[in-house]
Amino acid sequence: MANLFLEQYAGTKDSHVDIASYISGYIDGEGCFTVSISPRASMKLGWEVRPSCSVSQNGDRSEVLFEIKQFFGCGTVRPDRSDKTLKWEVRSLPVLLETVIPHFRRYPLRSSKRLDFELFAEICERLERREHLTKAGFQEVAKLAEQMNPSGKRRYFPSAMFQDSLDVKA
Amino acid sequence: MANLFLEQYAGTKDSHVDIASYISGYIDGEGCFTVSISPRASMKLGWEVRPSCSVSQNGDRSEVLFEIKQFFGCGTVRPDRSDKTLKWEVRSLPVLLETVIPHFRRYPLRSSKRLDFELFAEICERLERREHLTKAGFQEVAKLAEQMNPSGKRRYFPSAMFQDSLDVKA
Repeated sequence: MANLFLEQYAGTKDSHVDIASYISGYIDGEGCFTVSISPRASMKLGWEVRPSCSVSQNGDRSEVLFEIKQFFGCGTVRPDRSDKTLKWEVRSLPVLLETVIPHFRRYPLRSSKRLDFELFAEICERLERREHLTKAGFQEVAKLAEQMNPSGKRRYFPSAMFQDSLDVKA
Repeated sequence: MANLFLEQYAGTKDSHVDIASYISGYIDGEGCFTVSISPRASMKLGWEVRPSCSVSQNGDRSEVLFEIKQFFGCGTVRPDRSDKTLKWEVRSLPVLLETVIPHFRRYPLRSSKRLDFELFAEICERLERREHLTKAGFQEVAKLAEQMNPSGKRRYFPSAMFQDSLDVKA
């Protein structure tokens, strides 16, 4: 993966950049690990858990997003509905587990965003083990998710709601 | 410089990060190269040219700024007056020329911010040669500065004013 990318840039004059490390640095600054939990009637417990790794950028600097996409060999680049930026995003749980998470284990973030990543990785591993499909497992996942991105916006706090409202469905 | 930093983190479990590359990636995302040109009566031509390399960050993630300061071995970290962030900044022309610019030549930015860096480096080299102390040289420096950070705010465009207003002083 990294080698293909390096080959492409092998001719860059005087560059000593290690692309994998560069991309970890870039994503430490501009990236985001999130786990959204939203009501969804068709899910067993009435809630859908969706992990996402993304990087947003103004259109005039979007070339980096395509570099990141090429480096990881996954994800999509598309307009972000919330503003006028473009966003590279990976939502597929298998791809997150096989490609994205292993990268950040080898090339770790160095800011406090690393804490978000660790919670994110823990949640993805629990989702893979289908722990979120039991009431107790879902509540644990929700508690982990609620610790992430403390400065961000979160609409639902289902770990608190769970005890009352979800008994109806579960 | 980089080695000292790597030694400190040599014990980080499983990390393959090349710090120099990581920092270029981080600064590609979050950093800023600027050259401000402001009126200043005490300067020979009535204008002061000030280059700056900086990275701003919310206080809760400011540890990265101290890592960057330690990596480069220069600059200051202090509150940014414009908002509630902290900022690592290097303004010293000799330090920019000896430390900061050579780093980004070895570990180049990969987004279009690289164009800003190239203009920044060119201006710093002209300042070192004191070219900005002649009217023609100052005008060239101002023209280069005006091409930087096209989406940012710039209060003065002295390359255009120069022909008329500066004849009085120069």
